[in-house]
Amino acid sequence: MAERVVIVGGGFGGLYAAQKLGGASSLEVTLVDRRNFHLFQPLLYQVATGGLSPGDIASPLRSVLKKYRNISVLQAEVVGLHAAERRLELTDGALQYDTLIIAAGSQPYYFGRDEWAEQAPGLKSIEDALEMRRRILSAFERAERTTDECERRALMRFVVIGGGPTGVELAGTLAELAHNSLKGEFRHFDPSAVEVLLLEGGDRLLPPYPSSLSDRARRGLEKLGAEVQTGSRVKEIEEGRVVYERDGREEVTESYTVLWGAGMQASPLGKIIAESTGVELDRGGRVVVESDLSVAGHREILVLGDLAHFAHQGEGPLPGIAPVAMQQGRYAARLLKARLKGKDPGAFRYLDKGNLAVIGRHAAVADMGFIRMWGFPAWLIWLFVHIAYLIEFDNKVMVLFQWAWNYFTRKRGARLITGRDA
Amino acid sequence: MAERVVIVGGGFGGLYAAQKLGGASSLEVTLVDRRNFHLFQPLLYQVATGGLSPGDIASPLRSVLKKYRNISVLQAEVVGLHAAERRLELTDGALQYDTLIIAAGSQPYYFGRDEWAEQAPGLKSIEDALEMRRRILSAFERAERTTDECERRALMRFVVIGGGPTGVELAGTLAELAHNSLKGEFRHFDPSAVEVLLLEGGDRLLPPYPSSLSDRARRGLEKLGAEVQTGSRVKEIEEGRVVYERDGREEVTESYTVLWGAGMQASPLGKIIAESTGVELDRGGRVVVESDLSVAGHREILVLGDLAHFAHQGEGPLPGIAPVAMQQGRYAARLLKARLKGKDPGAFRYLDKGNLAVIGRHAAVADMGFIRMWGFPAWLIWLFVHIAYLIEFDNKVMVLFQWAWNYFTRKRGARLITGRDA
Repeated sequence: MAERVVIVGGGFGGLYAAQKLGGASSLEVTLVDRRNFHLFQPLLYQVATGGLSPGDIASPLRSVLKKYRNISVLQAEVVGLHAAERRLELTDGALQYDTLIIAAGSQPYYFGRDEWAEQAPGLKSIEDALEMRRRILSAFERAERTTDECERRALMRFVVIGGGPTGVELAGTLAELAHNSLKGEFRHFDPSAVEVLLLEGGDRLLPPYPSSLSDRARRGLEKLGAEVQTGSRVKEIEEGRVVYERDGREEVTESYTVLWGAGMQASPLGKIIAESTGVELDRGGRVVVESDLSVAGHREILVLGDLAHFAHQGEGPLPGIAPVAMQQGRYAARLLKARLKGKDPGAFRYLDKGNLAVIGRHAAVADMGFIRMWGFPAWLIWLFVHIAYLIEFDNKVMVLFQWAWNYFTRKRGARLITGRDA
Repeated sequence: MAERVVIVGGGFGGLYAAQKLGGASSLEVTLVDRRNFHLFQPLLYQVATGGLSPGDIASPLRSVLKKYRNISVLQAEVVGLHAAERRLELTDGALQYDTLIIAAGSQPYYFGRDEWAEQAPGLKSIEDALEMRRRILSAFERAERTTDECERRALMRFVVIGGGPTGVELAGTLAELAHNSLKGEFRHFDPSAVEVLLLEGGDRLLPPYPSSLSDRARRGLEKLGAEVQTGSRVKEIEEGRVVYERDGREEVTESYTVLWGAGMQASPLGKIIAESTGVELDRGGRVVVESDLSVAGHREILVLGDLAHFAHQGEGPLPGIAPVAMQQGRYAARLLKARLKGKDPGAFRYLDKGNLAVIGRHAAVADMGFIRMWGFPAWLIWLFVHIAYLIEFDNKVMVLFQWAWNYFTRKRGARLITGRDA
């Protein structure tokens, strides 16, 4: 009988594992996801700022995997795990497995202040991105409508919290949106007067990067007209204002549009795994995995991507970024195939190919280990890496054209206010 | 002082009026819409079936009108009218006008059975289209998941109510989606066995067209694998089933996905206009207008598009279609400019350029008055007319590429289940 492999999560980790297992006729693979599509999260900020449509960065999982006859896709939610009986509980039904690969990802984390989520949405799902887009564009509409100058000023101020890649990308794109794309579209205020404020708790942007690139990123944002305040710790977020501490002093800024790019925490599935297997979770709720990504005492359960705490090279856990998840997904598939042959492929090793963050329409910073770049050349590399992925992965050549179009016309055509209040 | 013109509604009628009034420095024009974008409604069925993304068929009103310095755009909702004082009440604020142009459109009408809306969503807004898309794709996902054969059969049956252009387009595209695009993507059932049932109350499809084209449309749909039942009057829509009367017999069909393409009624603004001006409304809630589109006794109020009942050529009211709204919008602008010069441009006259309805991936029917076409040639005309409009209007060249891509790959890339339940 075929070995039953169940994969939970169709993000980078789960999908790469599935693709590598596709076609192996001795394996019967089931990919379970709550959503029916894979999301290219690194471009989610483009949806949030009206540059791309959701369909441009999402691919139906069935369509991506249909060529592999040994893979089924199931849209379902996982609600429980019985590790002893090797059974996964779904909202309607259950799945038996021989091997379980869990790559359920992460979600925004508000440092215990979940009530902030309402005022400062995070960016993890399509719905998050559309909610951000709705808030950003609605602020401009309200600024055009109001007759109260103080309210208008607060509507024309955007606060981005968190100076990691997401925060930097959002702040840069917002500044460009206001100062370029929307030029000439309003009659009662000038969008080029819009302020974008990026608050970072640490002493520099993009903490994992070399500090020379942090400086470049800061200068890049300032050139676009965004203001960067490092060493700023948010104390309170309320409708219309943000309170933060900087250099020991309390600061207050009025703003109706606050975007969260700061913390992330593991999917609640981590807790379900821990309850069933007794495995240790770290402070962020991530599952502490062995050197082969397995759960202690359960070599048939592998956890990877943002949900996994992997720290076997003495350097603390690997960051929750796409390249880690992709490499772990491929490794999990390799491990499984090796085990079936009675072999041992050794521990997982992460190959750091570098880091990229985009700052604006044609600026980015890149740290490739052996070379550091910024400005236009780094942006070209960023563009090439992302487009190459989208095309290889799902033939999304359309996005390339859309992008070129946006670039040359400075248009952001997907500037729709939809959903709530609509 | 400049003449204050207020336009309500950024659909075809309102937007064409605004564009024609753009640049006339003696006019101060304000376009009010609840939404921040113009929607190309004739392609909404493509969003509902995953072929296009919302951004492909919507254009931000500000961006379309930004070159006209005499036009302001206001995202706001109209809640009242004081015709005697020439004042329009908004949710926040009010607008004084010298001339008021109202083109607020229409919405789905359930013949007094509003409770059907929950079971059988209509197709008028982006949200409607995304809700249809969610239901259609979720039905396939549930069919893959269920182990109950009866439930699966009901999930694999789609019922479209109404044999007008919207119903025909939906039924044809659904049949293609199931029988072509989704081929090979499911493991527990064969999507090519999906049934699409189109119910029409009258004795033929596309009632306003010549009956030879109705026959062609029917044959086109049947070729795609859809079933057409004319003379079918819906009696009840409940979760999981539709009851209808046909040839005096009651029929019941089990289906979890029922789409409404039947009746339309005027925007509730019709009632607001009637209360303030005493104008007559027709049975569909439309404002009965004079030969120059004005409201009786209020020549400064013009009503046009789907909201207007115009019947001055002895042929009953004009249909609620885009060409009527466009021509009335242009006429309203011409009328205003003529009045300012003390001239009279005469009554509005509709020039019927023909009717088009698409049946599937490369079939359509066209009635251009002097010529009737069907099949591939009609589809080419349909494609040309729509693409030409989108490009002329907002430079949406991207849609052309997207379309060509979908056509040749048979892909529908925007097949995302988003929103509710997500």
